[in-house]
Amino acid sequence: MKLSRADLDHLPERQRAAFINCLSGYKSANLIGTVSATGQTNLAIVSSVVHLGANPPLLAFISRPPSVDRHTLEYLTDTGYFTINHVHADMVEAAHQTSARYERDVSEFAAVGLSAEFSALHPAPYVAESRLRIGLKVRETRPIELNGTVMVIGEIIEILMADDTVPDDGFIDLSRMDTVTIGGLDGYYRVEPLVRLSYAKPDRPPRKLS
Amino acid sequence: MKLSRADLDHLPERQRAAFINCLSGYKSANLIGTVSATGQTNLAIVSSVVHLGANPPLLAFISRPPSVDRHTLEYLTDTGYFTINHVHADMVEAAHQTSARYERDVSEFAAVGLSAEFSALHPAPYVAESRLRIGLKVRETRPIELNGTVMVIGEIIEILMADDTVPDDGFIDLSRMDTVTIGGLDGYYRVEPLVRLSYAKPDRPPRKLS
Repeated sequence: MKLSRADLDHLPERQRAAFINCLSGYKSANLIGTVSATGQTNLAIVSSVVHLGANPPLLAFISRPPSVDRHTLEYLTDTGYFTINHVHADMVEAAHQTSARYERDVSEFAAVGLSAEFSALHPAPYVAESRLRIGLKVRETRPIELNGTVMVIGEIIEILMADDTVPDDGFIDLSRMDTVTIGGLDGYYRVEPLVRLSYAKPDRPPRKLS
Repeated sequence: MKLSRADLDHLPERQRAAFINCLSGYKSANLIGTVSATGQTNLAIVSSVVHLGANPPLLAFISRPPSVDRHTLEYLTDTGYFTINHVHADMVEAAHQTSARYERDVSEFAAVGLSAEFSALHPAPYVAESRLRIGLKVRETRPIELNGTVMVIGEIIEILMADDTVPDDGFIDLSRMDTVTIGGLDGYYRVEPLVRLSYAKPDRPPRKLS
């Protein structure tokens, strides 16, 4: 089928929003951990974390408009730090539940049954149950004027991982940790390795690495 | 294991870059189609496409620094349009091969064996083999000063999909199209549905939708 922009704009609002949320492809599944200046911890599932660059090591995510109460954006701005925690298959329901609109004095950690863990390097809480956790210092929060969202850019200052080492080729197979991926607004998916391919060169086809 | 920033910075450069590329979680797998002002088509695999917002319908991706020849960024700036085409399991090798550094006068479509298809609404080429394709008008290309990358924001003007209809709840199960996801720099993964969960409310646990 072919949809023009007019066709898209004529869909009922919820159907349209859910549909558009499917179009970017699979999304990363992460919990963002923050703490307020007064020590209130906060946890929020986010599907927009992306790799921004390796040198310096930067990750970014998109926060929805701050016109309503956005504890995550407020707290990471106040304290200067946040954590990114991978979501695995056995944590999906708890992680999803963090998207409920809890009052300011409720910690999502306690509300959904996940445990906060702290680092000596920064104040933001990690999710103890996550097998890959990243501590970041806020480098930039830049408003996107087109729709009022905010792009948060963090620089990696610490990595906590269930694995014992970083493999020689640097590749971490996230499917071994049972990390999930997200489709649309509410679909969670398991993942299975298909193929790894060698660095592409113009004069030859890609070679399978595994 | 725990890695401090110093540990990370001491890893050999390629190991470090490959490792950091795994940390954001799973990435979307898309081919960006563009055309130059003189009609040269271009195709590039990109793993950083994210949903930016539904109203207006915006998608974004991160382009690496324009310090070296970046045909995609140049062409979409010149013409004002680009396409996003989902990558499926049977297209993975061809899609990956678009990342080879082809000369300016080579079209990746011909080089990797994918077919260009055009729309009446804009000049950018679609990938005929893709089951979900999106035509976008460039709304903004914003430099990210922290590392020289560029965030490209496009507004959706057309959607071409193998399915006959948009389902009532707006949810497209990308695994039915065999759309893949990417881990790190070179890992491709198949995806299987785990669970869909209802809109979260503070006073009750999430309900399984399927």
